[in-house]
Amino acid sequence: MIIVMNAGAAQMDIDRVIGKVTERGLKVHLSEGRFVTIIGVVGDKKLLQDVPLEALAGVEKVVAITSGYKLASRQFKPENTVIDVGGVLIGGDRLVVMAGPCAVESREQLLESARIVKKAGADFLRGGAYKPRTSPYSFQGLEEQGLKFLAEAREETGLKVVTEVVDPQSVPVVCEYADVLQIGARNMQNFHLLKTVGRAGKPVLLKRGIAATIDEWLNAAEYIMNEGNYQVIMCERGIRTFETATRNTLDLSAVAVLKKNCHLPVIVDPSHGTGHWKLVRPMARAAVAAGADGLMIEVHPKPDEAMSDGMQSLTPENFTGLMEEVNKIAQAMGRNQA
Amino acid sequence: MIIVMNAGAAQMDIDRVIGKVTERGLKVHLSEGRFVTIIGVVGDKKLLQDVPLEALAGVEKVVAITSGYKLASRQFKPENTVIDVGGVLIGGDRLVVMAGPCAVESREQLLESARIVKKAGADFLRGGAYKPRTSPYSFQGLEEQGLKFLAEAREETGLKVVTEVVDPQSVPVVCEYADVLQIGARNMQNFHLLKTVGRAGKPVLLKRGIAATIDEWLNAAEYIMNEGNYQVIMCERGIRTFETATRNTLDLSAVAVLKKNCHLPVIVDPSHGTGHWKLVRPMARAAVAAGADGLMIEVHPKPDEAMSDGMQSLTPENFTGLMEEVNKIAQAMGRNQA
Amino acid sequence: MIIVMNAGAAQMDIDRVIGKVTERGLKVHLSEGRFVTIIGVVGDKKLLQDVPLEALAGVEKVVAITSGYKLASRQFKPENTVIDVGGVLIGGDRLVVMAGPCAVESREQLLESARIVKKAGADFLRGGAYKPRTSPYSFQGLEEQGLKFLAEAREETGLKVVTEVVDPQSVPVVCEYADVLQIGARNMQNFHLLKTVGRAGKPVLLKRGIAATIDEWLNAAEYIMNEGNYQVIMCERGIRTFETATRNTLDLSAVAVLKKNCHLPVIVDPSHGTGHWKLVRPMARAAVAAGADGLMIEVHPKPDEAMSDGMQSLTPENFTGLMEEVNKIAQAMGRNQA
Amino acid sequence: MIIVMNAGAAQMDIDRVIGKVTERGLKVHLSEGRFVTIIGVVGDKKLLQDVPLEALAGVEKVVAITSGYKLASRQFKPENTVIDVGGVLIGGDRLVVMAGPCAVESREQLLESARIVKKAGADFLRGGAYKPRTSPYSFQGLEEQGLKFLAEAREETGLKVVTEVVDPQSVPVVCEYADVLQIGARNMQNFHLLKTVGRAGKPVLLKRGIAATIDEWLNAAEYIMNEGNYQVIMCERGIRTFETATRNTLDLSAVAVLKKNCHLPVIVDPSHGTGHWKLVRPMARAAVAAGADGLMIEVHPKPDEAMSDGMQSLTPENFTGLMEEVNKIAQAMGRNQA
Repeated sequence: MIIVMNAGAAQMDIDRVIGKVTERGLKVHLSEGRFVTIIGVVGDKKLLQDVPLEALAGVEKVVAITSGYKLASRQFKPENTVIDVGGVLIGGDRLVVMAGPCAVESREQLLESARIVKKAGADFLRGGAYKPRTSPYSFQGLEEQGLKFLAEAREETGLKVVTEVVDPQSVPVVCEYADVLQIGARNMQNFHLLKTVGRAGKPVLLKRGIAATIDEWLNAAEYIMNEGNYQVIMCERGIRTFETATRNTLDLSAVAVLKKNCHLPVIVDPSHGTGHWKLVRPMARAAVAAGADGLMIEVHPKPDEAMSDGMQSLTPENFTGLMEEVNKIAQAMGRNQA
Repeated sequence: MIIVMNAGAAQMDIDRVIGKVTERGLKVHLSEGRFVTIIGVVGDKKLLQDVPLEALAGVEKVVAITSGYKLASRQFKPENTVIDVGGVLIGGDRLVVMAGPCAVESREQLLESARIVKKAGADFLRGGAYKPRTSPYSFQGLEEQGLKFLAEAREETGLKVVTEVVDPQSVPVVCEYADVLQIGARNMQNFHLLKTVGRAGKPVLLKRGIAATIDEWLNAAEYIMNEGNYQVIMCERGIRTFETATRNTLDLSAVAVLKKNCHLPVIVDPSHGTGHWKLVRPMARAAVAAGADGLMIEVHPKPDEAMSDGMQSLTPENFTGLMEEVNKIAQAMGRNQA
Repeated sequence: MIIVMNAGAAQMDIDRVIGKVTERGLKVHLSEGRFVTIIGVVGDKKLLQDVPLEALAGVEKVVAITSGYKLASRQFKPENTVIDVGGVLIGGDRLVVMAGPCAVESREQLLESARIVKKAGADFLRGGAYKPRTSPYSFQGLEEQGLKFLAEAREETGLKVVTEVVDPQSVPVVCEYADVLQIGARNMQNFHLLKTVGRAGKPVLLKRGIAATIDEWLNAAEYIMNEGNYQVIMCERGIRTFETATRNTLDLSAVAVLKKNCHLPVIVDPSHGTGHWKLVRPMARAAVAAGADGLMIEVHPKPDEAMSDGMQSLTPENFTGLMEEVNKIAQAMGRNQA
Repeated sequence: MIIVMNAGAAQMDIDRVIGKVTERGLKVHLSEGRFVTIIGVVGDKKLLQDVPLEALAGVEKVVAITSGYKLASRQFKPENTVIDVGGVLIGGDRLVVMAGPCAVESREQLLESARIVKKAGADFLRGGAYKPRTSPYSFQGLEEQGLKFLAEAREETGLKVVTEVVDPQSVPVVCEYADVLQIGARNMQNFHLLKTVGRAGKPVLLKRGIAATIDEWLNAAEYIMNEGNYQVIMCERGIRTFETATRNTLDLSAVAVLKKNCHLPVIVDPSHGTGHWKLVRPMARAAVAAGADGLMIEVHPKPDEAMSDGMQSLTPENFTGLMEEVNKIAQAMGRNQA
C-alpha cells in the first residue's frame, strides 16, 4: 500500500500518518519527491483495514498495490482448481455445457428440455425454480415444485442440476435437489447469501454482478471461500454499458483476466450476455476461444411460448448446431469436446 | 405496447402474433407501412406478461409504451406523498436532513455524533449496524448492539433513526429499533427483502442500485408498495460510470425525473455519491436546488478515526457549514429550512 | 510516479528499471516489501514520457502520482481565472448566462431568439452555424451565412456571440464573427483543432467529451493553453451512461472537482445534459448551487418548429422563469445575479 | 416511426401532430388505447427529419422503427462486401491480419517490424505517422517522414499499408503513401474528416468511437458511403465502461451484431481493446471465433523500448504464437488461414 501526501502536507501530517501505520506493527518506506512525499507501507495491509488513511490530514490518496482477495488468487494457489460434480469435471481439459430453460415452467417443458440438451451433449440441466424479476407482476417461479421437476429430470437423463438460490432461507431446500447452487447477478453482493452458500458444502456458480468489477467479483468469491467452500465457478454474463443493441455487454476479456489472476474455473453465459438468440452462437464460440471452461446456454423446446427470456433462448435445432460449432473450437484449443 | 414486425414477416407470422394477443382478451390496431407492419396492443399489458412476444417468428422488437410500475407513478397518484415519521414530515415543505456516521462503531462515537447532528439541525440520525462490505475481511458492523446504541441516541436527542437492514431475517429486530428501514444500493433488487420490508409496516428508504435505471428503481419501489406499504422514500446515491475522479457519479437529474413521474419523496446522499468530503457540500446544495426533499449526510466526530468511509465523512464543523448553506438554498427554493 | 514490480520480479529486472529511470536524470527511492518491490521515481516525469515502463520485464503497474496537465492546474495558478469578453466577465462574482437556439435556422428565428434571451437577462447569444450531426441526412447548418446572422444579432442587441467551430479550416472565418469559440463534445480530442484555436487569440469554450474523464478534459484544455491561449472556459454537458431516462447524465460533481483542481471558469449546459426541456430548469438551478460560473441554455422562439433539439429547448416563457429561479440561487450563493 | 402521445393529450394536440406529419406527404395510422393514443407514421421518415415531433404539445415520446443508416445496411445490400486492396481481399473467406507498431518511431524500427509481421503471415503493416495523444506533452508522431518509412517497408516486404489520418488537410498526403486510410476512435464523429475520406477514393478502416453505439458507428460509415466510397472496414477496438482491469472493454458482440445488420467487413483490434499484451492472444482467438474477418495487432521488435503503447504490444515471438493460434480457430470456422 502506498500513501501519497498532498503537495503542501506539513511534516506534522506526515509524522501522524507514519505513526498510524507503525502503531499497527507495519513498517514504512519514505520517499520524498520535489513536490510530493510518498509513504510506502510494508507488511500485511489487513492490519490497517479499519484505519481511514484517506481521511487523515495531508493525505492525497491511498493506492492499493495488492488486491483485497487472497484465497481466490493465483498467488495463493498457482494451479487450476478442478471441481468434480459427481464425475463431471469443471475446469479440466473438457469443455462443460450447462443448458436448459430460463425458468422451470412445467413438468413437461422441463423433461422435454432435459432430453433435448442431453441428446445434444450437455452435462448439466439449468432451470430457475426461484426467479428474481424486475417487476413484481412478472412470473416468479414454481419454487420447490420446480426443484422436484429438476430432480426428476436428473433421474431420467443423468444430467447434473444447476439452479439459482435467491435467499439464505431457501439454501437448505435447494441443496436437497441441486448439484450446483447458482448465485445470480443481482445477488453477487448479497453477502449473507454468499456466507450461507459458503457453509452449504455444495459447489457454487457465482454470476458476475451487472456492474461489478472483476475485483469485486473475486471478493464475492472470497466471501464464499472464506467460509471454507473452495468449489466456486465464476460465470461471466455481461455487464451494463451504454450500448443498447445487446441486453448486456458480454465481457470476454474477463475470462482472460480471471485465467491470469485466479485459479477457479470460468464459464460464460452468452444468453443473458447478449439477450438475442441470434447472437448466442457466435458468442459461445468466442467464449470457448477466449479460454472459458464451459458455457451456460438457455434452451427451450418452444422459445416462443417461454414464460421468460424467450427472446434469448435457443430452439433444439439451434442448440444442436451450437454444440457442433463450440466443439470444433474446443478441438482447435486442444480441449476435449463437450 | 407496440409490436414491430420484421421487414420480411409473412402474413402467417402477423396473424399468429395477433392471435396470441387477442386470445388474452386484448385488442390490436394494425398499421401496415411500406416496409414494416406494426401491431399496436390496446388493453392491460399485464395479461401478456408471460407471452414471449419477442420470440415469435417475424417479430423485430416490442416497444413498451407505459412503464411496468403503477403504484409509484404520478398517473396513479398525482399529488405528492408526504410521509410522517413521528411528526417529521418527509416530502412536505420542509427540507429534512439525515446525518450521522457510516457505521455505528461504539456507544461514545454514536452519542457524540447524534449530539453534533442534532445541534446542527438534523432530524434523523443515520448509522449502520449491519454493514455490507466488498471484502469479507472488512468491519461488518456491531449488529443488534449497534441498534441499541441508535435507540439510546434517539432517547437522548429526540432524533429519528434510519438504519440499514440487509436480509429478511433481521427485519424484525431492526423494526424494533428503527423509525425508517434503509434498503442499501446492493440490495435494491433483493426482491425477498423488498417484499419483507413491504410487510413490515415501517417507512422504507430505498437507495438506488449502483447500476439501476430509474425505471428499475421504481419497479423496486413497486415491490414494496405491492405488499401494502406505500411509505417509500427514494434515495439517489450515485451510479457507476467510467469516471474515476468521484467514487460514483451523483445523478441529480434523477431527482427531477422522479419528481415528474413519481409521487414519492426523494432524498439525496452526496456522501456516497461523491466519496470525497470536499465534494459533499456543493453537491448537497445542488441536490436541494434540483428539488430534493432531503439529504443524507455522513458525519463523524473524528473522520480520520472512522472504521469505514472516513474519506467521505464531514467533521462537525463542516456539517454545520453545510447546514447553513443548504438552508439558504432551501429558502431560495421557497422551502422551509431544515 | 511509482513503479510496482511483480511479486516474482528478479533482481535483474529491478536493476533494469532503475537503470532506465536514472539514465534520464531522475532519482529512485526503493521500497522492498515482503511480497513486492516498489520503485518511487523522484523528478520531472516528462523526462520518462517516452519510456514504456509498463512493458519492462517484471513491472506489474505504474501509478501516476501527479496529473498530466500543468497549466490548467490550481497548483500552477492558485487563483481563479476570470475571462473578460468585451466587458462581460466569466468566472467572476456574477453569474453569466449564454442562451439561444441549437442551430441558426434563419435570420428571423435568430433575431427573435436574441431579443428574447437579451430581455430575460442573458449576456451571450448561442447558436450553431456548423452543426455536427450523427446522421449525414440531418440538417448540417447554414455555415457562414449563419455566422452573419449571429453578428447582426450582436449588433442589434449587444449580446456577445458564442458559436461552435468544427474543423481547423473554418477557425479564421468563425473568428471573424464570434466572441467565444466553442469546441463541441465530439471534438474534445480533435487535437489539431485544439491547437488551432489555441493560436487563434479568442476565448475558447471547451465542452466535455461524452465519455471523457475529467482528467482527459483537463488535458484537452492543456492542448489549447500550451499554444499560449489561457482563456479557456470548461463546459460540462453530460456524459454517456447506462441510464436512458435522460439523453446524457449531467455530472455536476465535475463542477466541484474542477473548482478544486483547476483555476478555469466552469459553466454547465443542462439542455444537452438532460435532453428534455422539463428537466432543464431544475438542473440549471442545481448547476448554480454546485458552484458553476455560468449556464448555457437552449431557447427557441417556437421549440416545436426547431430544426434540431426542439425537445430540449425552452420556450421564451420557460426561459424567463428559469432566469428568475437561477438568480435566486445565485443570490443564495452570494453571487451577483445574471 | 411511432409517436406516443401523453396520457392526457388533448384532441387538439393529436390533430396538430397528425397535421405536421400529413403536410409532409406521409400517412398516419391512429391507435387509440384506453390510456394512450399512438400515431403510426407510414412513409419515408427522412421527410420528417427537421420536424421536432418530440417538442409538440402532448407528445410523450417518438420511437424510431427503422435505423438512420441505409447504405451500410443489409436491407440495402444483402450480400457481404469484399474489399480488394491490391489483391488482398478483406471480408472474403480468408482471415486478414494487420500488424505492426503503434507508432512509426524510426526507419530501423519500422523495417524490422515489417519483416517480423510479414514472416509471421500478416498481410498489412500498421503504424501511426500522426499520433493523437491525450497529453500535448506526449510524442506526436513523425508525420510525413513516417509515411515514407511505411512506403519503404511496403516496397521491401510487399505488405499493404494501413495508417491513420487525423485531419482533413493531411488526407492527400496520407493517400500518397497508404493503401487503407484509418480513422481513429477519437475521430469517429469528426464529420468533416469522414466526408473528406469519403471522397478520397481509398478504402477506409473506421474504428469505433470509445463511447459510440453500434448505431452511431454505422451512421459514421454512412457519412463515408454517402460521398460515394463504399469501401469501408469496421474495426471494433473496445468501449469505455466502469471496468478498470482492462484499458477498454472489447465488445465482441458488436461483431455479431454488425454481421447481422450490415454487409461491410469487420475486424477487431484486441491490442487497444484490452491494453495488456497478455490478453491480446485470447481475445484475438475469440474475435475470429465470433466471426471477425480480420485482426489488427500491435507488434514491436522491442516492446519495452516502444514510444507508445509498449504495454499492449506483442514481441515477435508472441505474435508468431498468436498467428498459429488464430489460424487454428480460422480453420475450425471453415475459413482460409491468414
